[in-house]
Amino acid sequence: MIIDCHGHYTTAPKALEDWRSAQIAGIADASKRLPPSQLKISDDELRESIEGNQLRQMKKRGIDLTIFSPRASFMAHHIGDYAVSAEWASICNELCYRVSTLFPDNFIGAAMLPQSPGVDPKTCIAELDKCVEDYGFVGINLNPDPSGGHWTSPPLTDRYWYPIYERMVALDIPAMVHVSTSCNPCFHTTGAHYINADTTAFMQLIEGDLFKDFPTLRFIIPHGGGAAPYHWGRYRGLAQALKKPPLREHLLNNVFFDTCVYHQPGIDLLMKVVPTRNILFASEMIGAVRGVDPETGHNFDDTRRYVEATDKLTAEGRRDVFEGNARRVFPRLDKALKARGR
Amino acid sequence: MIIDCHGHYTTAPKALEDWRSAQIAGIADASKRLPPSQLKISDDELRESIEGNQLRQMKKRGIDLTIFSPRASFMAHHIGDYAVSAEWASICNELCYRVSTLFPDNFIGAAMLPQSPGVDPKTCIAELDKCVEDYGFVGINLNPDPSGGHWTSPPLTDRYWYPIYERMVALDIPAMVHVSTSCNPCFHTTGAHYINADTTAFMQLIEGDLFKDFPTLRFIIPHGGGAAPYHWGRYRGLAQALKKPPLREHLLNNVFFDTCVYHQPGIDLLMKVVPTRNILFASEMIGAVRGVDPETGHNFDDTRRYVEATDKLTAEGRRDVFEGNARRVFPRLDKALKARGR
Repeated sequence: MIIDCHGHYTTAPKALEDWRSAQIAGIADASKRLPPSQLKISDDELRESIEGNQLRQMKKRGIDLTIFSPRASFMAHHIGDYAVSAEWASICNELCYRVSTLFPDNFIGAAMLPQSPGVDPKTCIAELDKCVEDYGFVGINLNPDPSGGHWTSPPLTDRYWYPIYERMVALDIPAMVHVSTSCNPCFHTTGAHYINADTTAFMQLIEGDLFKDFPTLRFIIPHGGGAAPYHWGRYRGLAQALKKPPLREHLLNNVFFDTCVYHQPGIDLLMKVVPTRNILFASEMIGAVRGVDPETGHNFDDTRRYVEATDKLTAEGRRDVFEGNARRVFPRLDKALKARGR
Repeated sequence: MIIDCHGHYTTAPKALEDWRSAQIAGIADASKRLPPSQLKISDDELRESIEGNQLRQMKKRGIDLTIFSPRASFMAHHIGDYAVSAEWASICNELCYRVSTLFPDNFIGAAMLPQSPGVDPKTCIAELDKCVEDYGFVGINLNPDPSGGHWTSPPLTDRYWYPIYERMVALDIPAMVHVSTSCNPCFHTTGAHYINADTTAFMQLIEGDLFKDFPTLRFIIPHGGGAAPYHWGRYRGLAQALKKPPLREHLLNNVFFDTCVYHQPGIDLLMKVVPTRNILFASEMIGAVRGVDPETGHNFDDTRRYVEATDKLTAEGRRDVFEGNARRVFPRLDKALKARGR
């Protein structure tokens, strides 16, 4: 089977955005707030938003299952305080959960966290626990920069983040390191901030020794690892200069890259440079880049084509990228699939 | 001949660093300041700092000429105010100029600018003019983030920067877009901030229409263009979504990448994806990554090896990358070389 480890609910019914707008307006003017109970989205509306979009594309592209989380750019952890983020995360996660119950063969959840700049990450644990234990989610998205492009939180290797890591280890779930919208005009959200965050996270992990403290902690760095594979020699050299072990030993038992790289030469490089066991298939489909590539006639984000076409994978390696690695990195996904006889 | 378009004076005599330390101490305590005249570095000291380092490596690697600018990480435009930056830039540029007169066959200068966060870029023009007109420098380094990792300046497409662009066009010199040291603990200087800045600058240029206003303005994005070539499909797709012309038309008459990518697969990707005419040979040698790659037995930053070894270049294309493109992008370099019969 083919598992896409990186999908967001980018096509949620308009009512969600309207509710969020009211919530944001309510920060300055409490009379504009709407209680979460005022957000009404029917199962039919959810079905429609998925069937004509992600599910249609998944069927067309032969993708069986997507690990599905709330829309990344809408997490916008920089807006409001913890209470605002908590209400918003709860609503968004619940919608992904409902999608996973409506389409149990095709979607399984990953949680956004109610992060807020400067707020202790342990405040995220209750939502995280609910999503994993009650909703059956198999992973989380962790935002290394809840300020939205001002980078005011400590590096991911700082003890600041340990409460989340402790819970991740206890629940045996990985985190995708994924920022949200940029409110810094220097950084285009999907063209600069996302990719920079991937590169930044990878370098933070090189600088630290996080996996000595958490040998089983696992991160997926999305968007093909940002700039890391392209500059693999630079990173091997920097690790060496910092007297760290070789990257394979220092990071590659714990750090994985997805395949959200939207052209063949990029995927070829990723597959050549990064060990196959560290690569998980993903498309972030109906996401950052929705158009058709005039050079190929296919969607830029139809990453299955690139993974099928690359000559850098063996048949076995390709199966690992499409399925085996995701089952290993997301053990709760593997368990859920096995429970359904898959 | 082989021209390295990206070299910094990373090996300047220790007296320079000592003077800078006194300058920085003098910001808080004026009694600690030293006038620039107190900095004494002899020609012999300059010769020694170059002959045993950059020049030795250049001879070993067969590099004829390096475009040489002050040490990037030491520019540190975030320290002090404009007066501090002006004094420091003047000293650092003068040293590069002296190196270029001591080794006129091997080094030619590029200027650092006396940028300071929040200060009008037109304050940089006097130093820029002096470097080009009096010192014979052929380019400048432009820091898109003089705050050192807080990204408080407007994007490069903003009119804020136009005074510098107007002068660049008048003098017919290009700028390398190069940040300095990061004082944001999230960003490792050479592993995250440099690469992120490259990616960020490229995306800023996609978002804007700067080259409509300045059709002959030229930027070199160093470190192989950050993440841009690896994510070339993403950037083509984002340009398309933003209703911009194709990248070739939108940017590639004005934007160039260097070859500071420290492994063979990275250089191969760069050469495959980016038109040859947009790639300038460079190594940033004795810079960010100084070690020997245990996988090859050669220095990570010995980029000539990768450019020689790639099968993505024709013989003519290789000559363009090594020489022709630099002569075209740096017309004052071409003129200086021709004046010496080269």
